[in-house]
Amino acid sequence: MTTPLAQKIAREYGTPAAVIDMDRVERNIARVQAQCNSAGLANRPHIKTHKSPLLAALQRDAGAKGITCQKLGEAEVMADGGLDDILISYNLLGEEKMARLAALMRRVNVTVVADNPTVIAGLPRAAAQAERTLSVAVECDTGRKRAGVETPAEAITLAKDIAGAKDLSFAGFMMYPTESGWDEAQAFYDAALKGVREAGLEPRLVSTGGSPNLKNLGKLKGATEHRPGTYIYNDRMQVAAGVATLDDCALHIYSTVVSRAAADRGILDAGSKTLTSDPGGGLDGFGLIIEHPEAKIARFAEEHGMLDLSRSNTRPNVGDVVRIVPNHVCVVVNMVDEVVMVRGDEIVGTLPVAARGKLR
Amino acid sequence: MTTPLAQKIAREYGTPAAVIDMDRVERNIARVQAQCNSAGLANRPHIKTHKSPLLAALQRDAGAKGITCQKLGEAEVMADGGLDDILISYNLLGEEKMARLAALMRRVNVTVVADNPTVIAGLPRAAAQAERTLSVAVECDTGRKRAGVETPAEAITLAKDIAGAKDLSFAGFMMYPTESGWDEAQAFYDAALKGVREAGLEPRLVSTGGSPNLKNLGKLKGATEHRPGTYIYNDRMQVAAGVATLDDCALHIYSTVVSRAAADRGILDAGSKTLTSDPGGGLDGFGLIIEHPEAKIARFAEEHGMLDLSRSNTRPNVGDVVRIVPNHVCVVVNMVDEVVMVRGDEIVGTLPVAARGKLR
Repeated sequence: MTTPLAQKIAREYGTPAAVIDMDRVERNIARVQAQCNSAGLANRPHIKTHKSPLLAALQRDAGAKGITCQKLGEAEVMADGGLDDILISYNLLGEEKMARLAALMRRVNVTVVADNPTVIAGLPRAAAQAERTLSVAVECDTGRKRAGVETPAEAITLAKDIAGAKDLSFAGFMMYPTESGWDEAQAFYDAALKGVREAGLEPRLVSTGGSPNLKNLGKLKGATEHRPGTYIYNDRMQVAAGVATLDDCALHIYSTVVSRAAADRGILDAGSKTLTSDPGGGLDGFGLIIEHPEAKIARFAEEHGMLDLSRSNTRPNVGDVVRIVPNHVCVVVNMVDEVVMVRGDEIVGTLPVAARGKLR
Repeated sequence: MTTPLAQKIAREYGTPAAVIDMDRVERNIARVQAQCNSAGLANRPHIKTHKSPLLAALQRDAGAKGITCQKLGEAEVMADGGLDDILISYNLLGEEKMARLAALMRRVNVTVVADNPTVIAGLPRAAAQAERTLSVAVECDTGRKRAGVETPAEAITLAKDIAGAKDLSFAGFMMYPTESGWDEAQAFYDAALKGVREAGLEPRLVSTGGSPNLKNLGKLKGATEHRPGTYIYNDRMQVAAGVATLDDCALHIYSTVVSRAAADRGILDAGSKTLTSDPGGGLDGFGLIIEHPEAKIARFAEEHGMLDLSRSNTRPNVGDVVRIVPNHVCVVVNMVDEVVMVRGDEIVGTLPVAARGKLR
């Protein structure tokens, strides 16, 4: 079964195609902005999900205070697109990055983060080149074991390092609590706050993160802003986390069934170079097919998605175009140069994924 | 420890960067061409690995008969770059693809494959539009459970369908035997050959595939050509398969250590948006760090590679630039818009990954 819209997409663009429903996009933007407003938090969406300055501008126009970027290259694209308040939530290192950071600082309002003294020691070079003071927040790890210092004592030390460094200004703390770890995050933050206040410092930015954490919004006393990313599109992981329904998933991969080599098997024209091998934290298969939810996208070749149809009552025919909700939409968007925009059953046009592949 | 070349790469381009050593690239091209020559097989390299018409031209100039592409969009880029003998090893379906296939047929010599009657039924449309006869091979599955008919009887039926279709010409058989399944492939091919000969047909193309299968080159009696792809760069999977050494790995991801949040942990600036979540068929971790082979790239965030250093005697410092051999180089190349070319310790320049993201 192929929907009329899927037929149009296949005819006009071919498959596989990444398709976003702008009605859902706008609804997701509005809903999360309202959640942040209710919680008394500024919204600073992470653009890693859509990588589009036009969508970032929609988020800003809906009320977001600024945006978050992971890589400097993403921030440069966003600045080109008119976004002027950017948190780069990443340790930036090396003279090549410092020169680019300086150039960016001259154009827009930039805050960066650091979780170690080496990064802090390098940042004054950018500030000096820019002839601006650079705001630096301390990244804190409260259980995820990603970037971030592991103890309040280290956070306090780094805050003092920042405050004492030439041309740097201590901005505050950035954290990304685990979904069940907000008490731990509160204890960490309270201890760090006490320590920096003893040193005469006051955080002006206390940032929490994550779309799955929208259900915890406002739980951290002292937080000033939240950095949700995935909510603009949503995906199977967000549905599994309980912060979105399938109806909130705004991006689908439209893919043609190109082979049915055996009764229990089928093959999609979307493989690991489209859907990626991201397991989505242990989901069943590599995406959900709307038309055949019992079908499992079991494994990949680079351009082939292997369907296990053994559980499927209805099975697709060769030539059917199906819609897939990705496991992890942020990495899937990063595979495509453009997305097709639709509203309901109408094609609106295409949107470049302008910061795609900006990995440095 | 950062090598002088890594320092130069970081300073001139920043990290993470995909870097290819052209001496190794040329050596890999020459070695496999010689292997094909010795086996009496034409070489038809698969460009999915490098996605560059310039590198495809090097392969052609070294003696390759033509090239293999997986997607029509890749073939279009290769035709733009002057490659004129292209096998598209993929079921092509739908009017959008047929129009593009017709346009391509008018420019270069194209062969396609099919593993089902629906695909065969659609192809005459392209041939008619192009006013050319289209060569179509039957894709056969001999154990991998990917695309391809599962039995010689089906292969024979499809061969007859092709021969009987307007403007189509039966080209032969394409297969991708498993590394241990060449007896099975031979039995399949012999039965299929017998059947098509009984129908008065003769294959002119009998194509085997895969860099891991270079160790099986020439084992299929009747084969006319081989389609190796990964050999131009090689990766951990090829080393594990025994067809390459680490010295044959021509592409490295240069990545900076951006955090050492705890004694046993480190973080690279290359995450799943650079190295991809491809497990490489069950390898230990997501890449091999040349400078710290005991370190494990244990898991990813999108822009962070999480290092488990618990086994490491020597541990990197924040700011170190390390070289990583990817698990599966073909999917990693597809993440970057360009690669940096070096020869030994000298930077030569950059090369666009021109067919990156050409997923349709």
